Amino acid sequence: MASKLIAIVAGVGPGTGASVARKFAATYPVVLLARSPSNYESLTNEINSAGGKAIGISTDISDSKSVQNAVETIKKEFGNDVGAAAAIFNASGGFLRKPFLELPEDVFSTSLDVSAKGGFIFSQATLPLLLRGVEQKSQHPPSLIFTGATASVKANANMASFATGKWALRALSQSLAREFGPQGVHVSHAIIDGVIDIPRTKELLKELGPEAKLNADGIANDYWWLHTQPKTNFTWEIDLRPAVEKW
Amino acid sequence: MASKLIAIVAGVGPGTGASVARKFAATYPVVLLARSPSNYESLTNEINSAGGKAIGISTDISDSKSVQNAVETIKKEFGNDVGAAAAIFNASGGFLRKPFLELPEDVFSTSLDVSAKGGFIFSQATLPLLLRGVEQKSQHPPSLIFTGATASVKANANMASFATGKWALRALSQSLAREFGPQGVHVSHAIIDGVIDIPRTKELLKELGPEAKLNADGIANDYWWLHTQPKTNFTWEIDLRPAVEKW
Amino acid sequence: MASKLIAIVAGVGPGTGASVARKFAATYPVVLLARSPSNYESLTNEINSAGGKAIGISTDISDSKSVQNAVETIKKEFGNDVGAAAAIFNASGGFLRKPFLELPEDVFSTSLDVSAKGGFIFSQATLPLLLRGVEQKSQHPPSLIFTGATASVKANANMASFATGKWALRALSQSLAREFGPQGVHVSHAIIDGVIDIPRTKELLKELGPEAKLNADGIANDYWWLHTQPKTNFTWEIDLRPAVEKW
Amino acid sequence: MASKLIAIVAGVGPGTGASVARKFAATYPVVLLARSPSNYESLTNEINSAGGKAIGISTDISDSKSVQNAVETIKKEFGNDVGAAAAIFNASGGFLRKPFLELPEDVFSTSLDVSAKGGFIFSQATLPLLLRGVEQKSQHPPSLIFTGATASVKANANMASFATGKWALRALSQSLAREFGPQGVHVSHAIIDGVIDIPRTKELLKELGPEAKLNADGIANDYWWLHTQPKTNFTWEIDLRPAVEKW
Repeated sequence: MASKLIAIVAGVGPGTGASVARKFAATYPVVLLARSPSNYESLTNEINSAGGKAIGISTDISDSKSVQNAVETIKKEFGNDVGAAAAIFNASGGFLRKPFLELPEDVFSTSLDVSAKGGFIFSQATLPLLLRGVEQKSQHPPSLIFTGATASVKANANMASFATGKWALRALSQSLAREFGPQGVHVSHAIIDGVIDIPRTKELLKELGPEAKLNADGIANDYWWLHTQPKTNFTWEIDLRPAVEKW
Repeated sequence: MASKLIAIVAGVGPGTGASVARKFAATYPVVLLARSPSNYESLTNEINSAGGKAIGISTDISDSKSVQNAVETIKKEFGNDVGAAAAIFNASGGFLRKPFLELPEDVFSTSLDVSAKGGFIFSQATLPLLLRGVEQKSQHPPSLIFTGATASVKANANMASFATGKWALRALSQSLAREFGPQGVHVSHAIIDGVIDIPRTKELLKELGPEAKLNADGIANDYWWLHTQPKTNFTWEIDLRPAVEKW
Repeated sequence: MASKLIAIVAGVGPGTGASVARKFAATYPVVLLARSPSNYESLTNEINSAGGKAIGISTDISDSKSVQNAVETIKKEFGNDVGAAAAIFNASGGFLRKPFLELPEDVFSTSLDVSAKGGFIFSQATLPLLLRGVEQKSQHPPSLIFTGATASVKANANMASFATGKWALRALSQSLAREFGPQGVHVSHAIIDGVIDIPRTKELLKELGPEAKLNADGIANDYWWLHTQPKTNFTWEIDLRPAVEKW
Repeated sequence: MASKLIAIVAGVGPGTGASVARKFAATYPVVLLARSPSNYESLTNEINSAGGKAIGISTDISDSKSVQNAVETIKKEFGNDVGAAAAIFNASGGFLRKPFLELPEDVFSTSLDVSAKGGFIFSQATLPLLLRGVEQKSQHPPSLIFTGATASVKANANMASFATGKWALRALSQSLAREFGPQGVHVSHAIIDGVIDIPRTKELLKELGPEAKLNADGIANDYWWLHTQPKTNFTWEIDLRPAVEKW
């Protein structure tokens, strides 16, 4: 039965999402959700070639129909009674640092749609699978983990579009932690407070040395650690930043 | 010139909104925005009869076109160069205390649409008028005030739909405070942490006595106090609760 | 009877303390506590000359015997059944921005002794008088107000000695607000997040213009506003900063 | 060289302290500090018998002379150039849930002396050893970990004596994290938000089942996890509570 337990990762780019997928793929079949297949194809190949099991499903996380289709695909692949050991919400609705009065409404709306509504849709779709993971006596308490940012706890000038979605997502995760903890699902929120070291950020913070950026595999380790906490010792929130970060 | 300065209140029900409108109407012409005219008609009559000046505009605060129409109506009424001394966002997207998996998507979306997107749209529409208030040397720094709730800082179980919108709104207010404070606009956020004493809540908390509920006129006094703070002494956030409240 | 109600201010320097004393002296006889009489003498003269009533008492706020002596002096002056309308804790245990390993233990201890233990001693000495103010039906709910700082909510590097005392004081004020609110005493905490404009800070922030520093009289107005809130609408915490402040 | 690295634990009772000592003893020689030898004697015996290395030193953590003596003893035992891989502050100054006006000053002072001043003294004594651990290229970044509580972030009524010390300790840990992170020392704070399962708490929360209390070995695992985070991914703060805890 435990073989039916899967891990689902929404938002798979070259950073946290990919590292998390690799980490959880060492134990569970993983399902990768991203709008564009180009975001998960090489990763599913890599995991499957290495002896793991991964499928990717093209999904618009802010659209409940699209997410429901993804769940149907998951059930076809893993059975109608499939349970989840982990669901990780790593999607993010973009980022436009702009004077507020120059911020287009659709940028603001898209950020909210992905971070807040997307978080809602993903949670409603995966919690039934996580609760089935509880029934199926998963080794570790089934985990629902949300990726936050500096902007989850601080709303700076010119950051309104990003921060509103991220604060909303943090609220969602806190409410769910309180509701689903007693039901055996471990809901967590990680404040990623710094720049992640990925190809796109190569030139950033170079002057501070090689340890000035967050390591994505390190984040994945921390998510795995959260996943393995027993029911007596649940952490809702961690912050994560490089040692040299100013905060 | 100062005669051109108005106050705009979005979300006018029988509680905070009406009290705030009355309070600010003692000094400024007030514009009341609500979806249904029944929410502002008796209030505009009351204020106009008492020698003040009030107009109501039927507005869907979560729809930028509707809000833009309201601004056009305001300009027709008060002139194209109208400035604002205060803009108060008191709208709220409903409230459904329900197990998360029973929460309809449209309830969640509506809450976000009003609290978060509505806050965004209202701010983009009124900040140009508030900045004109700065230019027109309003007696008190033009104020943009947001009404929050317990759920703005704590996301309890079964409160996901309300809390996500309220946390997003608080983020918006903090970001705007940081951006527009240096430009002379005073942005504030009030955490209303308790039940407001209005007809609808008459039966609530009776056992705790007549002072167990927040007084709406008291809230309006506090908003006025925020409005009169000088540029050297801006408060971003206050909390408000009855003395007997458990918190 | 109301004539018996006094206001007590601990920590009277040239800034907040003096402004608060003047403000409350317009309504109540005021008692000023400071270690050195030079800190209150000219102020008591000023208030008494202007038709108010003020006495100063040389007090070490971190020493319960000294504070008990002050209470005895107060009772001799105003009667054994004297009640208080307000007690304001504005003392602070110094400030040494230093690398942690160079921080002398006595600097750390003194800061804790004044901010945390001083706050405790002052509260234990004044709360009985404030509760008597409740019995004597003071016009406004008797108020116990604590002056905080940026370091009350953020502990920066090299600020350990100041921040520990200030966080402790904030904790004290929150606990007291929860315990004594239901008994009719209004306990508040003000986060003064910026430089106060006093002779000693004349040269600071000049480049940002005349409004870059907090106005001490403005702070006093805000404390008075807190004092006048009714029992239905208590604020525990406000933050205060100049409009141009980065935060 | 790495053989010189030790772990130091202050505050060793039957719960968190003992579990942490056992956990870190699997990798490092451990030094246990407690006022009474009865608090560490059986534990040092247990660790030494199991092939580990442990010494206990009778220490009053709120007395800098006593702590300095402990450091001298450590140097005699492990060499003058001894470095530390971890220092864990688990001491706590007691707990008296009482109406504020019945709280004896010495109870308040003792709590501050242990939590706040003790934290200061312990940090000043161990940071030089932790910095030596950095020089000696410890496998994991040397860690300074503080044990907090619910009362570290919430100051309830009747909890003033405990909360003031705990808030002060949290401030200390945040300031040190910001100062010493860039120097390679990982400073963390754990909010233990629930009852720990130890003999003394056997009868508590029985009605909620066997998983209603925090497991001390689980806390130790989490401290070890914090210890093993790389310099690119430091967590300052975690919260920990049973899944069924109301919060």
